[in-house]
Amino acid sequence: MADRPGPLLIIGGHEDKDRDRVILKAVAERLNGGRLVIATVASHEPEGYFEAYQKAFGALGVTDLVELYVEERADSGGAEALATLDGAAAVFFTGGDQLRISSQIGDTGLERRILDLHAAGGLIAGTSAGASVMSETMLVKGPSSESYRIGEVHMAPGLGLMKDVIIDQHFAERGRYGRLLGAVAHNPRLLGVGIDEDTALLVEGRAGRVIGSGAVYVVDGESATHSNIAEAKADRALSIFDVRTHVLSSGDRFDFNRRRPTCGSDDDEGT
Amino acid sequence: MADRPGPLLIIGGHEDKDRDRVILKAVAERLNGGRLVIATVASHEPEGYFEAYQKAFGALGVTDLVELYVEERADSGGAEALATLDGAAAVFFTGGDQLRISSQIGDTGLERRILDLHAAGGLIAGTSAGASVMSETMLVKGPSSESYRIGEVHMAPGLGLMKDVIIDQHFAERGRYGRLLGAVAHNPRLLGVGIDEDTALLVEGRAGRVIGSGAVYVVDGESATHSNIAEAKADRALSIFDVRTHVLSSGDRFDFNRRRPTCGSDDDEGT
Repeated sequence: MADRPGPLLIIGGHEDKDRDRVILKAVAERLNGGRLVIATVASHEPEGYFEAYQKAFGALGVTDLVELYVEERADSGGAEALATLDGAAAVFFTGGDQLRISSQIGDTGLERRILDLHAAGGLIAGTSAGASVMSETMLVKGPSSESYRIGEVHMAPGLGLMKDVIIDQHFAERGRYGRLLGAVAHNPRLLGVGIDEDTALLVEGRAGRVIGSGAVYVVDGESATHSNIAEAKADRALSIFDVRTHVLSSGDRFDFNRRRPTCGSDDDEGT
Repeated sequence: MADRPGPLLIIGGHEDKDRDRVILKAVAERLNGGRLVIATVASHEPEGYFEAYQKAFGALGVTDLVELYVEERADSGGAEALATLDGAAAVFFTGGDQLRISSQIGDTGLERRILDLHAAGGLIAGTSAGASVMSETMLVKGPSSESYRIGEVHMAPGLGLMKDVIIDQHFAERGRYGRLLGAVAHNPRLLGVGIDEDTALLVEGRAGRVIGSGAVYVVDGESATHSNIAEAKADRALSIFDVRTHVLSSGDRFDFNRRRPTCGSDDDEGT
């Protein structure tokens, strides 16, 4: 086992499953023959999710897949759920409701096994709700296609795999710049990371690299000179000045310690 | 007549016409008993537009309204069209297609009369397409709810009432941060101004003040340290780093010469 944590693959939803599959390929390449656990916990009705990934990963030569689903929180410490992680090289959280992931497996034996797998070098991937849940504080809900109004974003504790960020997904597609900005305004210690559909941030250590067809937005509130979030009445639109935004596309990298982007190209590979 | 240009009221679309009408009130307050010209030129099918504004402004006590519509460019120099501007205190451009405004009245006698009215202190207001057309270079079209891809934004010369900015409307509602950023990336000399629905920027001289229920986004590319817009292939997502964004809500102001925001409150009134 490696003595440093494994990579995180944080996907903005709707990753391509039929054509180039560049994002799913990034998962397949990191299995080293180990088992891939498809965690469909986020879904209230998980039927069909596992089969869709089984087919997409099968086309990439990955055949050792198991589904991890827990109906009730009480099952998350059970032997059956824990056994799905035996021999696992990676866990892939599918979409649905991020609050289902955190409420059903947070602080259970299952969560500890997943965190241990990551700490030992295993890959943790998540798409849509599975992306949101990676951060310590996660965005649960808030209006899309609207500017942020005071009091409108709901946040909750996530799995904490990724420190000091708050993640949003389906980002440009659902017009979520306003809500991510609202989340960041609460405490600019958290860097806002908005990920488009069919786009992912592959995080190794504290460095991220973009893969996929869209963009990753990094919203840095450290430089902000004014915000009305603590003063204004509910329902009033947010004011915030001097926010630094980076838009990264395929191949670009981001250093989360230095909070700095560097440019790359589509063809860049690597660590 | 005043010896300095009149105000501009740049509206993000769907301004409230039934309740508080704060934006339409800002028009009504600046008429000083003069005539209000409702220019429905942007619309391919203008039926009903004038009547809707007639009703909304009527409720605010404004009764001297005329409609300005030109079916064909050839009409834009005609006596009938020019006569609608006699005694006018303000022109209000309604929504539709900004390219219809610029192509039908650009460089005609009608445009000169409107520019003269503004130069002499008259108010020029515009909502949606009528907002976009105010700048020298206007955004014509580009995808909403997507990150910007190289080559996807179409721009064209506007009426040039507002220098060094590019305006977008229905901003948060249609998820247009990506496309405005794409427009700004072409030449960061232009400041990007994105205006939400039921929200307006009232510009006097080179100072703007926000009114209405949503937000105004100012995207300043001057600080940008990298962009791939000139290098990347068509269809590739835009990368751009270190863009400064300001989100302004009701009462906040923006100094376009210094490119700086200042905070205000809902109750602030303008100079």
